[in-house]
Amino acid sequence: MSTPLGTRDRLIRTASRLMTHGGYESTPVKQLVKEAEATLGSLYHFFPGGKQELAVAAIAFGDEEFAEVLALGLASRTDPAEAVEAVAVLLADALRDSAWLDGCPVTATALESVGRMPDLQAACAVAVANWRRLVRERLTAGGLPEEDARDLAVTVISTLEGAEMAAQVEQSQTPLLLAGRHLARLIRSYAPAP
Amino acid sequence: MSTPLGTRDRLIRTASRLMTHGGYESTPVKQLVKEAEATLGSLYHFFPGGKQELAVAAIAFGDEEFAEVLALGLASRTDPAEAVEAVAVLLADALRDSAWLDGCPVTATALESVGRMPDLQAACAVAVANWRRLVRERLTAGGLPEEDARDLAVTVISTLEGAEMAAQVEQSQTPLLLAGRHLARLIRSYAPAP
Repeated sequence: MSTPLGTRDRLIRTASRLMTHGGYESTPVKQLVKEAEATLGSLYHFFPGGKQELAVAAIAFGDEEFAEVLALGLASRTDPAEAVEAVAVLLADALRDSAWLDGCPVTATALESVGRMPDLQAACAVAVANWRRLVRERLTAGGLPEEDARDLAVTVISTLEGAEMAAQVEQSQTPLLLAGRHLARLIRSYAPAP
Repeated sequence: MSTPLGTRDRLIRTASRLMTHGGYESTPVKQLVKEAEATLGSLYHFFPGGKQELAVAAIAFGDEEFAEVLALGLASRTDPAEAVEAVAVLLADALRDSAWLDGCPVTATALESVGRMPDLQAACAVAVANWRRLVRERLTAGGLPEEDARDLAVTVISTLEGAEMAAQVEQSQTPLLLAGRHLARLIRSYAPAP
């Protein structure tokens, strides 16, 4: 039996789910509180900064959730190119299983935050940097030179993000599966570190 | 001297700009009408379906605008790999010159539309398919086999979209410039059609 979640955790998970689907602005506080089975008072108790402070916590939660999927995929193969392709397959399966709704937890909010909500924008940038670090470490562990691994990690995350969005819009795994295959080919084109 | 835009065009351009920045939900009709120097009456005159019908027209407008940048970059080099890299550079410059605001005109709205607003989702899917076609045609014209070009075009657009988002969030051209370099390398790894 799992321990029931406290109010604070329910608020964070609900905000993360709603923001994954529609971003920050289209997530009304009323709906958020209702779906979290919480009260407006409890939201301001745990998050004195209100919806925006809760949103920052929700981005950090989404960051960790996505990092877990990444880490799982990256650890599932010995070869680093195959490992990155495995991540794309995991994401494609999770997306299909969620009726194409559970995409990247950060993308929608990140776009809204640019130049408008610096705290949220910073939380999104931290998440992206975290995911890149996981990929970079996996590529260097797989034998790639440090600089190539650092640059490739940026493009691996960009490509997975863009492919996830495309897969959602056309309700098809194809963009993610192609992204995985092409990223693996790109990674294989780099010589291992001497 | 350019002819002043009519009310319908002003509504579409304003909606496209606001939706590029924050998506559909966070674009209030009031703000839209005010910034377009129009009236609510004129919005419903030109778009009897209201905000959502206007949004579909705005996505089609953003589709064409983005396609023009794509076509410009793709035509700027003889080599197809260099041509795709040139697109990434164009996007990186346009993004910096707009204070990181003018990203992809479709991404934010696309994510909101999934499973919620089928007309908008379809318009976004049409835009993505249009951009892929431009890349696919350029790659086959550059000598790549038809099937490779079709698959690569999907990943080129996914990668540019994801890199654009990353560039916006961290206010840096680097993700787009790396995406361009990596996509060129990937394209070069394919043998020309016999």
